[in-house]
Amino acid sequence: MEVCARNIDHAAALAAQVGAQAVSGPAELDTAVDFCIVAVNDDALPAVAGQLHLPHSVTVHTSGATEAEVLRGVSPHYGVLWSPMSFVRQEAMDYSSLPFCIEGSDAAAADAVERLARRVSGRVCRMDAGQRRWAHLSATVVNNFGNAMLAEVQRMAAQERLPFDLLLPIVNQTAQRAALDNLWSRQTGPAVRQDRNTIAAHRAMLAGHPRMLELYDVFTRLIADRDSSQ
Amino acid sequence: MEVCARNIDHAAALAAQVGAQAVSGPAELDTAVDFCIVAVNDDALPAVAGQLHLPHSVTVHTSGATEAEVLRGVSPHYGVLWSPMSFVRQEAMDYSSLPFCIEGSDAAAADAVERLARRVSGRVCRMDAGQRRWAHLSATVVNNFGNAMLAEVQRMAAQERLPFDLLLPIVNQTAQRAALDNLWSRQTGPAVRQDRNTIAAHRAMLAGHPRMLELYDVFTRLIADRDSSQ
Repeated sequence: MEVCARNIDHAAALAAQVGAQAVSGPAELDTAVDFCIVAVNDDALPAVAGQLHLPHSVTVHTSGATEAEVLRGVSPHYGVLWSPMSFVRQEAMDYSSLPFCIEGSDAAAADAVERLARRVSGRVCRMDAGQRRWAHLSATVVNNFGNAMLAEVQRMAAQERLPFDLLLPIVNQTAQRAALDNLWSRQTGPAVRQDRNTIAAHRAMLAGHPRMLELYDVFTRLIADRDSSQ
Repeated sequence: MEVCARNIDHAAALAAQVGAQAVSGPAELDTAVDFCIVAVNDDALPAVAGQLHLPHSVTVHTSGATEAEVLRGVSPHYGVLWSPMSFVRQEAMDYSSLPFCIEGSDAAAADAVERLARRVSGRVCRMDAGQRRWAHLSATVVNNFGNAMLAEVQRMAAQERLPFDLLLPIVNQTAQRAALDNLWSRQTGPAVRQDRNTIAAHRAMLAGHPRMLELYDVFTRLIADRDSSQ
């Protein structure tokens, strides 16, 4: 097993953890390998793929937003091994519950990717490129936009002398309820009740927080116009 | 101890659980009580308060959005015992970590409310009416708007043949990161990178989901204009 990274120290650190050899560039990789995971930035994928020729390998990338075909010239079988999670170095994670979205250029590639994913996790889902695009967009909304909403509340709370950590239990409660069916039918709050007095009071408070006021108005309209028929 | 509710069956059920008497209306309550919790809908608070006269009591309501003064005529000491959580009958909850935001009309009232809250939870925060208004607005954003965002993604996923439960781990991951400092400095995703290709691809996919497209554009602008200086 070999680990190759732009930063040879990072390659050496990971190689030491998994009992592999560190190599300093794609040209030095053993071309006899039967599986290759290309885990690089989306932008770097075409250039790295251009340097790889692995005639006996199933080669996968780990990008949610990139077509499998970027690997077409690399090896006879290729695919995608992507997890809709946000990875941060040094942050502990429970890999056994990690969801994997996988794709293969053919049945043999898909089988090989699935076998690998199942060695780590029990939650492996084969999908086509179209489904993966929707999964990537959906993960962007719930993770990136979810963080942005929390970040803006955290910033506002600091200005308004409110201990933000009082809100952590309700943030977790809302996230846990995501496992329930038909979330629109469970919507609560002033917007769903069209409680004009509370909405007007909230909007007046937000006069000094224009970005939060814009969010407030968009969500209040979204909730009023919701389609809970599913 | 007495439990009074509009629905006498609900009063009897709770009374049986806590070893109390059920009574069928405010006029029947024992006026010698030394603590009274008025847990009714915000809209019903003024009318219920008008029926209560408890000369020896500390009386509190449990509304995040209502002033303590609605209880001024009820008893010599009054206040608020509010938790920024969403309560649903039959849903299990860990009360020991329940945050309480409390307020009292005077020091004796605040002390009495705090003693009561601390019998349930270790997370009790005294605040003034202004802070509580911000806590209520913030809880509305993270809970009601958070649920609306998840509901709309769930609805879209159903239309696009995407198993929504693949996203539950990242929803929980985002919520757990809310405990970290300066969330704006931790923002990730296409909007913070101003990755125009991915943003354009996402927007094209959302042509058939106009409400989600509106959310997408508002958050993409919010993230571009963010103030991460705190």
